[in-house]
Amino acid sequence: MTEPEQLIIDMGRKARAAFSKLTGVSDAQKAAALKAAARHLRDNQSMILAANQRDMKSARERDLSDSMLDRLMIDAERLEAIAAAVEHVAVLPDPVGQIIDRTERPNGLLMERVRVPLGVIGIIYESRPNVTADAAALALRSGNAVILRGGSEAIQSNGAIFDAMVTGVVEAGLPADAIQLVQTTDRAAVGAMLKASGLIDIIIPRGGKSLVKRVQDEARVPVLAHLDGINHIYIGKDADQDKAIAIAVNAKMRRTGICGAMETLLIDQDYPAPGPLVRALLDSGCEIRGDDAVLELDERIVSADESDWDTEYLAPILSVAMVDGVDEALAHIAEHGSHHTDVIVTEDADMAENFILRADSAIVMHNASSQFADGGQFGLGAEIGISTGRLHARGPVALEGLTTYKWVVRGTGQVRP
Amino acid sequence: MTEPEQLIIDMGRKARAAFSKLTGVSDAQKAAALKAAARHLRDNQSMILAANQRDMKSARERDLSDSMLDRLMIDAERLEAIAAAVEHVAVLPDPVGQIIDRTERPNGLLMERVRVPLGVIGIIYESRPNVTADAAALALRSGNAVILRGGSEAIQSNGAIFDAMVTGVVEAGLPADAIQLVQTTDRAAVGAMLKASGLIDIIIPRGGKSLVKRVQDEARVPVLAHLDGINHIYIGKDADQDKAIAIAVNAKMRRTGICGAMETLLIDQDYPAPGPLVRALLDSGCEIRGDDAVLELDERIVSADESDWDTEYLAPILSVAMVDGVDEALAHIAEHGSHHTDVIVTEDADMAENFILRADSAIVMHNASSQFADGGQFGLGAEIGISTGRLHARGPVALEGLTTYKWVVRGTGQVRP
Repeated sequence: MTEPEQLIIDMGRKARAAFSKLTGVSDAQKAAALKAAARHLRDNQSMILAANQRDMKSARERDLSDSMLDRLMIDAERLEAIAAAVEHVAVLPDPVGQIIDRTERPNGLLMERVRVPLGVIGIIYESRPNVTADAAALALRSGNAVILRGGSEAIQSNGAIFDAMVTGVVEAGLPADAIQLVQTTDRAAVGAMLKASGLIDIIIPRGGKSLVKRVQDEARVPVLAHLDGINHIYIGKDADQDKAIAIAVNAKMRRTGICGAMETLLIDQDYPAPGPLVRALLDSGCEIRGDDAVLELDERIVSADESDWDTEYLAPILSVAMVDGVDEALAHIAEHGSHHTDVIVTEDADMAENFILRADSAIVMHNASSQFADGGQFGLGAEIGISTGRLHARGPVALEGLTTYKWVVRGTGQVRP
Repeated sequence: MTEPEQLIIDMGRKARAAFSKLTGVSDAQKAAALKAAARHLRDNQSMILAANQRDMKSARERDLSDSMLDRLMIDAERLEAIAAAVEHVAVLPDPVGQIIDRTERPNGLLMERVRVPLGVIGIIYESRPNVTADAAALALRSGNAVILRGGSEAIQSNGAIFDAMVTGVVEAGLPADAIQLVQTTDRAAVGAMLKASGLIDIIIPRGGKSLVKRVQDEARVPVLAHLDGINHIYIGKDADQDKAIAIAVNAKMRRTGICGAMETLLIDQDYPAPGPLVRALLDSGCEIRGDDAVLELDERIVSADESDWDTEYLAPILSVAMVDGVDEALAHIAEHGSHHTDVIVTEDADMAENFILRADSAIVMHNASSQFADGGQFGLGAEIGISTGRLHARGPVALEGLTTYKWVVRGTGQVRP
């Protein structure tokens, strides 16, 4: 067994022991731990910012890109946002202990499904040191133990944030091993986490596509994630023209780099005003790659090639196709989509229901911008990620997605005939 | 690519296309398909029994054990039970379309979580040909497409049952590929199913421990199953003595071969009447393997060795230990249990709640026999299996466990600020 493998197994065993102790911990204690952690984040501001400065210095020496540097950077304002986010998780309702359903059987047995924590959660992430606090807070709030493995570029920042978090955890009387940070930069530790079945219950990758893909390909532990957000908006023939323009421009251009951004626009061939729609997008600064029918709408439009339909641009670029009705729109989405977020814009309620029923996406929207694909916007209070998988939790995942249930059977001596 | 791999990929693609068509199928149509399937099972009795006779003949020639032969055998009565079970699934409530929760956001967006089918389900099973009908009925009732792979010993019986089922499916206007049977006996087809990520959404193995273990070890597709049912009953010091005896004898001896049978009895050292309890078990024909303290209770008790605590006997054999309080009982269960079903017998309500909270089992019972661990007994109407995994579905799994959800966002033109 290699050193990183042994390290992860040891951490996994400690995490399981901590998880077991956490089942006896009250809601108030978990909330108190997070509030104490937030306080220690603020109290240790100078230490955390100094640690971040060391990471920033190494990153500049290694010529990391400006966007990487921006993701890595923590100043006083960002640290305050991190602490406030931890406090926010502390006041979210605790899903643990909630009774999902209850049935009394004819023999008097009472069957309840009760929400319980998932167990041990592994978080593998890059760059942004705020994930150290965010993910630990969400995992702990829902009664889970967590093993965090951040990127090597943020190792000092993550360590300093982790120290503040764990101090709060211990102060509130929770087991110290409830949150653990993998302190080695050896990438073999990631591989060991992905194979730690029986010790880690679920892995949540947070970062770029290459990280998510590696995790999905190699993991023997279940993974909660999305790889792509190739999101479609279909403009039906009866769409309101103002709504169509407002939604399409917002869905593409509000922020182009987020997973809920629109990447392909499908315009019904009977929609009466395709010209104003594509011009509004072009005028907002969006490059449009169109099929033959779309090319005719404006001379600024360039020709799409086959790979465009499968591309998540995360940039002010959009592929646009004309389609013949909702069936063809759904067929395009089925062929090229990534089961993340797909939208129909129409005033025809029956067509909207048909699309909602048949689009096989984690999130299906009617007359709304795909940029709402976010746990906070859904009212979940927070988000650990968005899942395009079909099992366990789908779409935006928050505290409830970090729980499972057990069956509690309450009897008075019943035996089975 | 090998021939079995290509076969499974082709079947997987057909299944996905059928699944897509199934989303437009009404509850009434799905129910009608199952009723028609039941009718065809009855109408084709002579053909099905003849096919089963051919399997029985080969099985006898291959010297299969009597218990294998019994599992394989279908007579008129068993076929009627198979048809009746399919009809029973037809009248269960359809979970698909159920709204799990609904929130209206301050901006007027309506967020709903709506239950949808899981997708394509792979069932890998042995011996019992009734699984062909049972599993297909449950998968189809919840709107899923299914790929069935039965054991080679039952290939004729499975084929005949499958033909009747698919005739009913087509008659009701559902796509024929909604249920498919792997017709090759090449075991490489099983391996191909286990690796068919993106085509098969979940694998459910039905059969002996070696089958389940192979599936769990090799699968790249999520698996819903349990490997062991090492179930404990802890007799607290305040247990009612009559209940303790009735529950222990029933939990062990009612049927010793089912996964809900008790395998280890933990008696509190302060329980006042351990003698009558173990004598009732011995008198009912149970062999007892005890620790040193238990050995003193009756001369018929033999000494347990370390492996006994980790053994699922599925036979009239029981390991029995004395423990010092609920903490030691829980520690024993955490070390040796299989997260299936664990029981406390006590009249002390606080102790019962403590046990219920802390036992990390899919099913935790108070004052009831572990033999109730069964979907039918839980009021689920049917059961596709029991899951000891933590994700997606836990404990007895029926129709709801074969579904997931999607988020439906209903707007009136909202864009994200």
